[in-house]
Amino acid sequence: MGKVEIVLNSLPMSGGDGPNSYSKNSHLQRRSASLLKETINKLITEKLDAKTLICDSNTIRIADLGCATGPNTFFLVQDIIKSVETTLEPNSTKPEFLVFFNDLTNNDFNTLFTSLPQDRSYFAVGVPGSFYGRVLPQSSVHIVVTLAATHWLSSVPYELLDKSSKAWNKGKVHYSNAAEEVVKAYEDQFGRDMERFLEARAQEIVSGGLLVVGMCGIPEGMPFSNLADGIMYTSMADVLIQMQSQGLISEEQVDSFNIPIYSASPEEVAALVEKNGCFTVESMELMDPAAWLKRPMDVEDVSQWMVCIKATMGSLFINHFGDHLLDDIFDRLTDRLVGLTDKVESSYREKVMLFFALKRK
Amino acid sequence: MGKVEIVLNSLPMSGGDGPNSYSKNSHLQRRSASLLKETINKLITEKLDAKTLICDSNTIRIADLGCATGPNTFFLVQDIIKSVETTLEPNSTKPEFLVFFNDLTNNDFNTLFTSLPQDRSYFAVGVPGSFYGRVLPQSSVHIVVTLAATHWLSSVPYELLDKSSKAWNKGKVHYSNAAEEVVKAYEDQFGRDMERFLEARAQEIVSGGLLVVGMCGIPEGMPFSNLADGIMYTSMADVLIQMQSQGLISEEQVDSFNIPIYSASPEEVAALVEKNGCFTVESMELMDPAAWLKRPMDVEDVSQWMVCIKATMGSLFINHFGDHLLDDIFDRLTDRLVGLTDKVESSYREKVMLFFALKRK
Repeated sequence: MGKVEIVLNSLPMSGGDGPNSYSKNSHLQRRSASLLKETINKLITEKLDAKTLICDSNTIRIADLGCATGPNTFFLVQDIIKSVETTLEPNSTKPEFLVFFNDLTNNDFNTLFTSLPQDRSYFAVGVPGSFYGRVLPQSSVHIVVTLAATHWLSSVPYELLDKSSKAWNKGKVHYSNAAEEVVKAYEDQFGRDMERFLEARAQEIVSGGLLVVGMCGIPEGMPFSNLADGIMYTSMADVLIQMQSQGLISEEQVDSFNIPIYSASPEEVAALVEKNGCFTVESMELMDPAAWLKRPMDVEDVSQWMVCIKATMGSLFINHFGDHLLDDIFDRLTDRLVGLTDKVESSYREKVMLFFALKRK
Repeated sequence: MGKVEIVLNSLPMSGGDGPNSYSKNSHLQRRSASLLKETINKLITEKLDAKTLICDSNTIRIADLGCATGPNTFFLVQDIIKSVETTLEPNSTKPEFLVFFNDLTNNDFNTLFTSLPQDRSYFAVGVPGSFYGRVLPQSSVHIVVTLAATHWLSSVPYELLDKSSKAWNKGKVHYSNAAEEVVKAYEDQFGRDMERFLEARAQEIVSGGLLVVGMCGIPEGMPFSNLADGIMYTSMADVLIQMQSQGLISEEQVDSFNIPIYSASPEEVAALVEKNGCFTVESMELMDPAAWLKRPMDVEDVSQWMVCIKATMGSLFINHFGDHLLDDIFDRLTDRLVGLTDKVESSYREKVMLFFALKRK
């Protein structure tokens, strides 16, 4: 209880508020979150019964799991609170709001706390721990949201770290374009993780409460290599192999490096929800995370994309290759991808955000 | 709501876990807390009605206000949970525990979170904000403890920062041995702060819940200068004036520096509780925080005491005089106090911890 049982290889977003930090480089995530604003508002007003929100302390409790260091989480929470307020009976006692901001224990909570909006209309608490286990007491939250977080696996699938396994991912950093066994290992890891995620949430969310998830998605059956992210992971591998040939990193380091991120299809998530049995599906759809971009992607967009990727995945690289190589890796990666702008532009980028909303039975 | 309305001049304990950190230098506080273990256990088993603990989610909620970075707070919380478990009906459903760890927003929560016991039997959350305002929702906690925290005023009394006031505390750092107006300004500030503290807790604690406080205390009417702490504050002022004469700091810096710590008598706290009206007094006593020391204080004890004071008050000095002078100030202070060991040993040190427990009506 309250104990992280999984050894997490995944690392938190870059802390602080410096030029490489997540808090300064998460505007793409912010744009995706804006897309969801309307959808979440609609869900809360239509699917959340005001009776669900009644509790002995007249406090409505909301959790953002995988909140990172802000500021996106603050916009999200404020929008949710507004939506909840419109669903309340006009004559009822004004409730108080308690917001649980959760992320891994080594997330930079100091930055999160010092950036909390001064004029916030809620009580804010930080919850350290992996959402692949319990992080909150039973029946303690009314609404749980988690955006851009559950595609992070709890760890690299263990098969990928076994040299004698067919899933040993030599010269690659992801399951894109990889051996069938690698794809299967990622799929299985996601299945186990999502099962644990749903089990934990089933205990934490009150009956009638909502679980809202936005994460990397993919249409069922589509090869990952068709995606812009597929091109990125291939380029990452190319960069690492180039650096290996220059003696900057070892073969062993390259072969043992894998990004623990998985894009799920609506069908596989629906099956896992069905298996869990504690939730009804209120919404399940693939959305276009770049719908705000009304023109073809250009060189500048690709560069900006890499700045966000560096803030998001930087600590994975630092942990594996050392702090001193981070800038070099990302400079090379950006150069390479900028050169592939046309290919990125023509890649599949439409329905790669999976959005689903579940109601606790 | 949830908004710190007071500009806090008080600063958090030294963060991190380095040689000057609070987490490595709080063993004196730990010893005082051990003294309270029995007392708190007795209070919980005798004064807390099992019915008070029943709530819709079967979760018992505990808060430590002013928890710093640990580890003392973890021992304290574990002891409280043990005591609560003995008070529960033997056949009742086993509850879950949620612990709110509160301290100022600029407290080092990252260190707190990474030092949380791995095998803890409770859910842990961090709550940033001053306990002189609301930090938690209404009726959200069953037991609130705050040790070695409420003697920190929300700020230096404003009168002390006004050169034209009789409370301008020239050449001194505290109200010990100071002008009557200075003493009065500290008293008034404590009165205002404790009023706000009690008002906030009255809203946060469930009916029947307990508020347990341990803080610096003093018998009514005793001059502060009789205390070992009085000797320490006088020595601090002497050190600063010496450094001023050597051109290391300015006169202005010395005269505007005051330690916002106040020792309260049982009588003045009882009057504030009475005025608040929401609590009954279950316990109110002065205790000897050094009762564990069965021999006269020696030179080594005085040195150790200064190590703790440096970890506790260091950031006040850094903020006012700069990082570069901290070691120099405390080296001088330690030398001076070591030379006064006999005086410290014969000072009044018996009943200088005020312990009180209130029950929410």
